[in-house]
Amino acid sequence: MSATAKKLLVDIHTHVYLPRYASLLRSRSSVPKICSVTTSDGTPQERLLILNHEPSGGRPVGPQYWDREEKLKFMDRHGIDVSIVSTANPWLDFLSAPDAQTLASELNNDLEQYCSTSPRTSSGNYSIKRLYGFGLLPLVPEITTSAVLDTVNQIAQLPHLRGLIMGTKGIGKGLDDAALDPVWDAIEKAQLVVFLHPHYGVNAEVWGEVNNGHVLPLALGFPFETTIAATRVILSGVLDRFPSLRLLLAHSGGALPALSSRLASCIDHDPIVASRLKHDARYYLGKLYLDAVAYGPEELGFAILNRSIGSKRMLFGTDHPFFPPLTSTEKWKSVVENLEAIDRVQGWSREDIDGVCGANALALFNLTQ
Amino acid sequence: MSATAKKLLVDIHTHVYLPRYASLLRSRSSVPKICSVTTSDGTPQERLLILNHEPSGGRPVGPQYWDREEKLKFMDRHGIDVSIVSTANPWLDFLSAPDAQTLASELNNDLEQYCSTSPRTSSGNYSIKRLYGFGLLPLVPEITTSAVLDTVNQIAQLPHLRGLIMGTKGIGKGLDDAALDPVWDAIEKAQLVVFLHPHYGVNAEVWGEVNNGHVLPLALGFPFETTIAATRVILSGVLDRFPSLRLLLAHSGGALPALSSRLASCIDHDPIVASRLKHDARYYLGKLYLDAVAYGPEELGFAILNRSIGSKRMLFGTDHPFFPPLTSTEKWKSVVENLEAIDRVQGWSREDIDGVCGANALALFNLTQ
Repeated sequence: MSATAKKLLVDIHTHVYLPRYASLLRSRSSVPKICSVTTSDGTPQERLLILNHEPSGGRPVGPQYWDREEKLKFMDRHGIDVSIVSTANPWLDFLSAPDAQTLASELNNDLEQYCSTSPRTSSGNYSIKRLYGFGLLPLVPEITTSAVLDTVNQIAQLPHLRGLIMGTKGIGKGLDDAALDPVWDAIEKAQLVVFLHPHYGVNAEVWGEVNNGHVLPLALGFPFETTIAATRVILSGVLDRFPSLRLLLAHSGGALPALSSRLASCIDHDPIVASRLKHDARYYLGKLYLDAVAYGPEELGFAILNRSIGSKRMLFGTDHPFFPPLTSTEKWKSVVENLEAIDRVQGWSREDIDGVCGANALALFNLTQ
Repeated sequence: MSATAKKLLVDIHTHVYLPRYASLLRSRSSVPKICSVTTSDGTPQERLLILNHEPSGGRPVGPQYWDREEKLKFMDRHGIDVSIVSTANPWLDFLSAPDAQTLASELNNDLEQYCSTSPRTSSGNYSIKRLYGFGLLPLVPEITTSAVLDTVNQIAQLPHLRGLIMGTKGIGKGLDDAALDPVWDAIEKAQLVVFLHPHYGVNAEVWGEVNNGHVLPLALGFPFETTIAATRVILSGVLDRFPSLRLLLAHSGGALPALSSRLASCIDHDPIVASRLKHDARYYLGKLYLDAVAYGPEELGFAILNRSIGSKRMLFGTDHPFFPPLTSTEKWKSVVENLEAIDRVQGWSREDIDGVCGANALALFNLTQ
């Protein structure tokens, strides 16, 4: 610990299946579910299936997915001071409205507990915890607006929750559904960060018949889904109506930065859509926040270069506990790659790097207050 | 005309529905089709529908889509010396195998005639025509390999056809279908450029219920489809087995450059897929050619920066006759934007710019021979 404040490494993209949620998945017979199997060498194993037709019978899961001690050990191994933890997909999407409402409230309280009882960072001038959280909203069909707003208020009042994670379905019709306007309004007023995260990808037929494991849905389907959702939000005028809304896009915004000028051109050629928006499509990119989970310096540099998102709107993340290493003793390659990428972006100053690694998160999530 | 060779502007992404093909579309009652309608002010109009559930009842079409004089006028208006013309989507995908085989052969001959009878450029040292073409293969289910190979040979022997345009379905199972290996082999040996172009996008449900016209399928669906197809080609080892194959990706490779490091990471974490490939996923990006149809300088600079594709592998295109101007007298904004983008890429030398505008195409398509 130095006399001046140590630079903190803050991970804003890191997931958990809280024990209450993992128990629910274990109790289910249909996807999403956790099931117990015995591997070919006789070892018992739990496997997580979150999508229908998931390749390779899902993925093996263990304490990394729910045990707070494992999260802290992972953080220690990689020098991560603070994590802003979010429930992993598919959140509450598969539940009835009453069940989603109850579970959202319970999981938000669980996550507050998970964070509030975590140790403090050993970080000189700062006196902050090692764990903060993104809450959950009961965004499912047939939920009432007031139930969603109650949960926004709950999250806003839980001191260690600083935002909420959201999938792309909204209450069934996606995030460009006008029925969500009161929700955006409440989130904007509560100054909560919305972490927009994919789950469904696109239709599985596009991946073809060759067995490529999880590669195509993860590498392409996930970022495509985020790109579509963010674009629909832009086209629906949400960012015109709620200009202070803070949307953080998973996986560095997916393909949105690379397709933003094409998007602007397509809008230009469609007067009806163009007339609905106050600004060129690329303007809205500059209003978004992106995680730095792109695995390469060129991608990071481009994502923030493009349309002046600026490095202050980019934040380090790991995607833990996904992308685990192939052997248990090593540092996680996915984490090392993302940290190296931040260090190697052409033209970034030390201040840019420190910002992406932690200072931007401290500011965005108001962690020093 | 100057004493030294004038720098040529070459458009490698420009489409036609040849009269024979337009007639076929007019004769059809199901999509794809051209139908005659009367607009609300009583004007007769032809409209093109190429996808089921197409928004806004398709798009109005006219001589720009089939008349060679209109192509040459468009080229003159924008200073384009040479165009390498390709049939627009959906090519022959909707035909039976015998019909596709017959029509491919006829359209290839038609396109050879369209090009061979075009004027010469007024370009100093060069003595080349203003029009060259990409042929068509009868890539439909139940076609025989020998029928496809016959058509590869036909194209290779037509002097003004220098490549072929290809959708993403292959003979039904996509471009990672091992049954296509003899086709890739023949194309590689004939040194024909494969122009990989989208048509289907992704499933329409992902666009939601809000009416955004053609914006989402065009801005996102098209590049997603190209990205998926190129990735599946990479994962199937085609570029390992046919290392001299020259694939040109529409729309600057879509999202592939932006997702290439994520793709590499996902492959790394899947030993079965990783063990199938000779190189890191990003290596294969450096083997591809991209058009410069991305509408912004940041996108172009990034696409070729990323994984050393290099500006020599990028080529100017217009996507004519799509993205027409909103009034008939102006230069086409889509063309002006793409030319300005090439001029404004940070760090590009005059040689880079001249290459992308024309010199790279002269070399890739061997136009000065």
